[in-house]
Amino acid sequence: MHDETGMRFDHVGIATRDIGTIGVLFEDLLHAPVVHEERFEDLRIVFLKLEGGGYFELLEPVAEGTIGRYLDRHGPGIHHVALETADIDGALSRARSLGIDLVDEEPRAGAWGHDVAFLHPASTGGVLLEFVEH
Amino acid sequence: MHDETGMRFDHVGIATRDIGTIGVLFEDLLHAPVVHEERFEDLRIVFLKLEGGGYFELLEPVAEGTIGRYLDRHGPGIHHVALETADIDGALSRARSLGIDLVDEEPRAGAWGHDVAFLHPASTGGVLLEFVEH
Repeated sequence: MHDETGMRFDHVGIATRDIGTIGVLFEDLLHAPVVHEERFEDLRIVFLKLEGGGYFELLEPVAEGTIGRYLDRHGPGIHHVALETADIDGALSRARSLGIDLVDEEPRAGAWGHDVAFLHPASTGGVLLEFVEH
Repeated sequence: MHDETGMRFDHVGIATRDIGTIGVLFEDLLHAPVVHEERFEDLRIVFLKLEGGGYFELLEPVAEGTIGRYLDRHGPGIHHVALETADIDGALSRARSLGIDLVDEEPRAGAWGHDVAFLHPASTGGVLLEFVEH
């Protein structure tokens, strides 16, 4: 049996069209160095690590996709909140049992090779939540 | 000299018009019990504590004010991200030296009696950041 306890903030995802500027600003402002960079088909991603734990994930579109569309509609800013769990399957089961619509019915490989799954914000008060299992 | 290191996520603030429904949902979904409630002139606030550390702060307007106006404009969802620091004065000085506009030039008493200060999101890529010193 997995351990479902101990959920905590893994990262806050920020949508931006200028990862360079905001990356340097957040690094300096929060003493949060870049610890990981990744490129997907439609996205460039940079992770900044807070000294006390937790990350900012900066997301810049490099082609049409969900983040580009999000930016067109809402402008830059906080896109989602990711919670670390030791049991992503259990967390998704609980979400399902509470009637929450899932964006990802099953965990999939996300940034940094972690298992991730998003919940639909219409089910969670407009908050886009992501579960992450490292 | 204060210790400026060790910044970490204190809480994520959620704007809602229905703190009851989302409070119960987040409690059940995240195993995050209500640990603090507070009433301001224009706001009702509930804090939920994640088992692994960190809080969600649910904000519901009870009169006209910034959260009510935010909801009118943007709808419910993630409103701000709060970072805990052991030296809020140092953190604000650093923000000022980086040319960031401050909503609060000096720390003020916020929820839970903590010292808080907000930075202007126009200076930080559309992200409303709050510094908190417990």
